Amino acid sequence: MVEHPLDEALSLDVVEPGRFHGRTTPQYWNMAGPFGGVTGALMLRAVLDHPEAQGRPVALTVNFCGAVAEGDFEITARLVRGGRSTQHWQVEMTQEGRGVATTASVVMGVARETWGHRSAGPPSIPAPEAVPLFPTAIRNGWTAQYEMRFAAGAPTFPQADAPRAPDDIRSGLSHLWVRDAPPRPLDYPALAALSDSFILRIVQVRGDLPPTATATLTTYFLADPADLARQGGDYLLGVANSRAFAHGFHDQIAELWSRDGELLAVSTQMVWFKS
Amino acid sequence: MVEHPLDEALSLDVVEPGRFHGRTTPQYWNMAGPFGGVTGALMLRAVLDHPEAQGRPVALTVNFCGAVAEGDFEITARLVRGGRSTQHWQVEMTQEGRGVATTASVVMGVARETWGHRSAGPPSIPAPEAVPLFPTAIRNGWTAQYEMRFAAGAPTFPQADAPRAPDDIRSGLSHLWVRDAPPRPLDYPALAALSDSFILRIVQVRGDLPPTATATLTTYFLADPADLARQGGDYLLGVANSRAFAHGFHDQIAELWSRDGELLAVSTQMVWFKS
Repeated sequence: MVEHPLDEALSLDVVEPGRFHGRTTPQYWNMAGPFGGVTGALMLRAVLDHPEAQGRPVALTVNFCGAVAEGDFEITARLVRGGRSTQHWQVEMTQEGRGVATTASVVMGVARETWGHRSAGPPSIPAPEAVPLFPTAIRNGWTAQYEMRFAAGAPTFPQADAPRAPDDIRSGLSHLWVRDAPPRPLDYPALAALSDSFILRIVQVRGDLPPTATATLTTYFLADPADLARQGGDYLLGVANSRAFAHGFHDQIAELWSRDGELLAVSTQMVWFKS
Repeated sequence: MVEHPLDEALSLDVVEPGRFHGRTTPQYWNMAGPFGGVTGALMLRAVLDHPEAQGRPVALTVNFCGAVAEGDFEITARLVRGGRSTQHWQVEMTQEGRGVATTASVVMGVARETWGHRSAGPPSIPAPEAVPLFPTAIRNGWTAQYEMRFAAGAPTFPQADAPRAPDDIRSGLSHLWVRDAPPRPLDYPALAALSDSFILRIVQVRGDLPPTATATLTTYFLADPADLARQGGDYLLGVANSRAFAHGFHDQIAELWSRDGELLAVSTQMVWFKS
């Protein structure tokens, strides 16, 4: 049986408890390094693979400190503090001779039933089967590892040297159905990667491709393990937008909903852009 | 001249470069520890006071690992990686005999002018002078350190033993004018504290006061130093809301706008609640 490319990308070898070895894979390559969503998923994976991990992921913040080079990396995960209801973890990715590439913090929480309430709802868009497939498969790199069906705000994927029309400012809002390609049962690392699978909003809004990079990404998991298990390999409804672009940075927000209207995860990131 | 209570709360003594000593102050006390907004501001303050800090704050993530006790604490700030355009910092607050209370990551960015665009706008509410003062001054603790004027979604501040009416679910949306009391010129630590000055949404939505605590808080600063200087001690327009409450946690989002419609900061947090 052929391993799913995401499982290959998220495969970690234990060097010693809390210390892992891994390597980048070509399938999730981005323009100047691996896809940040997979880097974030790896940081989470290291915590989940730690013998002291308890509960289920609640929050993940990933700081992209420097470029990750093609090849080997090491991840260390350290339990900073554990309590009855939560654990706080600190995670670091290093590459030999290159220093710290990525840091992350992870909050784990005891899986339990409580009062619940959903004050927001998903946008109303046609079923995934009725929305055309966006052609990611013909592209190189990480977008080909996702099936995307845009009901609104499909990206233009401009050329790197495309001129920018200063008056042509588009909406940063996208609504899409998204899942791993090929489909794969949803788990927390896959959901962490999906939370970063939205094209950077500056590309969406301006229609050109300036030098840009995510500085920091935070994902909150509202779903418990049973909620994830119910999804199987089904589509998730993704919503992405931005509020402001100023002084070399822009914010980006995203939501991932189940087909039946549960909010599984929300994320936000701060994106650096050159000019 | 009497020192502003916020300056007193954010006062740090240098033990050695990157290592600071401070103490909690009664003015910003919360129910079971100091107000998390001031704890976050202290973590940022430690980076800003570090001799290697460059640029202006871009992002701050604060992880509330354990309760902070009344009294002395130590904060260490470490530059994880610095580049031409950003710096990544890791910060830790400890108390003697109690271990790590708080961790934080800070992204600093070179202050510079670039293309800008605001895709969201502030809600339209009456000027602060036309919105009644919310009575925080008569209360003990941190809320008395803020002047709040609610145009929508004023909190009820229930008693700890107030019964909950299960069918009485309110909106989690609040619109308010907010500033330090007494007014104080806006800077990044004050903005960091303000980004956590919104009553936890579960109190707002349910109208009771269950055991609850912020697990992690992330604030992005869209404002550059000149934007902050322009505010002086003026009111900011705050917006707070939540999207989902499930499995013992809820998300919370907030925006802080200038009176003239600039988005100065956005924040999000994941809040633990007992039941």
